Amino acid sequence: MKDFGSIGPTVRIGVIGLGGRGRDHVKRFAAMKDVAVTAICDNWQPNIDRTLEEYFTGPDALYPDATRPATTLQYQELLERSDIDAVCVFTSWETHMRIAMDAMLAGFPTCMEIGAGQSLDECAELCRVSRRTGKPVMPLENCCYDEKEMAILNMVKKGVFGELVHCRGAYCHDLRDEVGLGDRQHHYRQPHFFHRNGELYPTHEMGPIAKYLSIGRGNRIISVSSIASNARGLGLWLAKNRPDLAGVRPTEGDVVTSMLKCANGETILLTHDCTLPRPYSRGGCVQGTKGIWQEDGNLIFLENRTNSAKESFAHKFEDAAPYLEEYDHPLWKTYRDAESRLVVGGHGGMDYLVDRAWIESVQDGVEPPLDCYDAATWMAITVLSEQSVAMGGMPQAMPDFTNGAWLTRGPVPGMWSCDQIPS
Amino acid sequence: MKDFGSIGPTVRIGVIGLGGRGRDHVKRFAAMKDVAVTAICDNWQPNIDRTLEEYFTGPDALYPDATRPATTLQYQELLERSDIDAVCVFTSWETHMRIAMDAMLAGFPTCMEIGAGQSLDECAELCRVSRRTGKPVMPLENCCYDEKEMAILNMVKKGVFGELVHCRGAYCHDLRDEVGLGDRQHHYRQPHFFHRNGELYPTHEMGPIAKYLSIGRGNRIISVSSIASNARGLGLWLAKNRPDLAGVRPTEGDVVTSMLKCANGETILLTHDCTLPRPYSRGGCVQGTKGIWQEDGNLIFLENRTNSAKESFAHKFEDAAPYLEEYDHPLWKTYRDAESRLVVGGHGGMDYLVDRAWIESVQDGVEPPLDCYDAATWMAITVLSEQSVAMGGMPQAMPDFTNGAWLTRGPVPGMWSCDQIPS
Repeated sequence: MKDFGSIGPTVRIGVIGLGGRGRDHVKRFAAMKDVAVTAICDNWQPNIDRTLEEYFTGPDALYPDATRPATTLQYQELLERSDIDAVCVFTSWETHMRIAMDAMLAGFPTCMEIGAGQSLDECAELCRVSRRTGKPVMPLENCCYDEKEMAILNMVKKGVFGELVHCRGAYCHDLRDEVGLGDRQHHYRQPHFFHRNGELYPTHEMGPIAKYLSIGRGNRIISVSSIASNARGLGLWLAKNRPDLAGVRPTEGDVVTSMLKCANGETILLTHDCTLPRPYSRGGCVQGTKGIWQEDGNLIFLENRTNSAKESFAHKFEDAAPYLEEYDHPLWKTYRDAESRLVVGGHGGMDYLVDRAWIESVQDGVEPPLDCYDAATWMAITVLSEQSVAMGGMPQAMPDFTNGAWLTRGPVPGMWSCDQIPS
Repeated sequence: MKDFGSIGPTVRIGVIGLGGRGRDHVKRFAAMKDVAVTAICDNWQPNIDRTLEEYFTGPDALYPDATRPATTLQYQELLERSDIDAVCVFTSWETHMRIAMDAMLAGFPTCMEIGAGQSLDECAELCRVSRRTGKPVMPLENCCYDEKEMAILNMVKKGVFGELVHCRGAYCHDLRDEVGLGDRQHHYRQPHFFHRNGELYPTHEMGPIAKYLSIGRGNRIISVSSIASNARGLGLWLAKNRPDLAGVRPTEGDVVTSMLKCANGETILLTHDCTLPRPYSRGGCVQGTKGIWQEDGNLIFLENRTNSAKESFAHKFEDAAPYLEEYDHPLWKTYRDAESRLVVGGHGGMDYLVDRAWIESVQDGVEPPLDCYDAATWMAITVLSEQSVAMGGMPQAMPDFTNGAWLTRGPVPGMWSCDQIPS
């Protein structure tokens, strides 16, 4: 295994999209000794100014010694530069794929933030462009690198749950104030909540689940069916807090439930629940022939290990914490050891890890651990769920974006792999 | 409100079906001072013998002073008796409705145990027979009378959760040993697990949810979509524990997930999960515009009451116990006060309450709190989910068994009502 946190050849990056999430990535990349942020772009000048001010030029700039990146309002200009090695796309949901494709067509290995997919054709096009150009695009799904999800991945791949049968995940996050206070032009979620109705944010939970179930590498999702509840929460919130938007009737159902079927027979349940008052949860659940883990409460039951009465009515969950510690993922072990040398990333560390996974794939010129097929499949769930809701819950077929390659593709090798556990 | 636990005119009952569950009901009915168990029937003599022995004639019989009930192997004989006022049907899943219809046609108010429905036509026929004969049939769904579910019902009807948007329920119960050790002839579940694939046991969770959402009385379920995971757990168990059945390949998916849509826009999620190692749960969840309750962990979040940071990421659940106490259902208050006078029922008291609810409806000659439409709708979910699984998750239309009456039917009145809270 490569030394974690080692400094490789410098990667010069161009960053497109400097909203809150984009600036957050810039902050981490600029802190890496082997990354140079050469150019930045946003179509809204205040985002450029704020990025420069906070990190490069302001009186309290975090990186006053770094070279000041070039700036532009036109991402096409950035893609024409000869002083960048790779491109990051952190724009709005509806522009991620389009700009990522332009970046690959311009010859750059690319990463992009995730979110809702827009159309099946665009998802397929992303894969066609990546294949045709030979340039990879990595979706930066941070939850694939979360401490908890990686420990569960370790347990899954070591067979602790037996054969997997069913997984659940959710994006339960009361976003009424965030979505409500934004504006259509500059908040990436707002127009989607006002006009769409489906599983708008599947990747946080789907990313880790896809890796547990080897989606794209020996397994695939074959169908998606969804129903949506009434849309009440956001409209009530707007009526109370945004008099200027009091007439808006958001279309996104408060709770959108999706059922997915896999080629190998497993089922997946996803929940999108963002406009009602409730605590945050990614609602993870992994269930197999030997036991079950539930994220809410961090509970586990393993048939041959949980100290519980044999009689079925008396089975009791136990605290999963000791198991998560026992199955701590090797990447997290080394990350914690190296932490003093590194900028600790957002969201507890997973943001750093996913960014670093991409940078090292660029340095090494290898396939990134997450690729165009992951991005296309996970983001297509939004489109399929939307179609299914519109058709009363009719199941929608998931295209095989790999054109049959999933039957024989093996796991990504290396320390950053989410497909297998590095020894 | 009628005095709880008062002794009314004696109700003479005939009981058909004396398996474990049937004997359990006989035990409670025989203990009621205003109920006489006049006749009992089972098509398997050992069940009759055991009932007599345990309750009426054995050296340790519970009710040695009670009159010994008449017995028969043929339920038609029981239905011809002139010394019974009402009939109980506690037979196998596939005979509940047929025998209940025969009982109504013979002129008796009837109750029946619940379980999986067999066909949509039979569900509709149950309602037609009840209408035509003017005799009610009450499904004895005990969970409608559980302490917890009744407190939640109280909260729902008092608007604590605001407008309801989404409900969840589950039957998560590791039944491998129970189903596996049975035999096809005398275990009611086994043949269904060996040959069917759907939501086999919806009523425990659907009963309370139907009452929260006023199903059949101003609202109705319009569609059911289901998917089933692989069926692995029971087959593995049989291979290990039942060499004589090692060749059996059960068809029932380990986890069957069903999504239901209601006419008024609410959605319901049901889970059937009975053949994997896991703790018991009915997985209840009630979610509305003002907050959420989750049964697992007994957690609650109410926007205007839960003491939690305002920022959405920091919302935290709190313990629901004080709320369940505050909203204790009036029926449970009086039940606990009266408990010393009563036989305490099984499953914490709900079994007594549901049995008593039926007996008092017979005594008073009034509509029972649960009726043919409840039975038909809840049990039809099994049939529809089975069809949906067979069709790859295609949504199935729920028939309106009330023929339009749901649009105007109001709540059942009285102390036993699950539709409104008695004042």
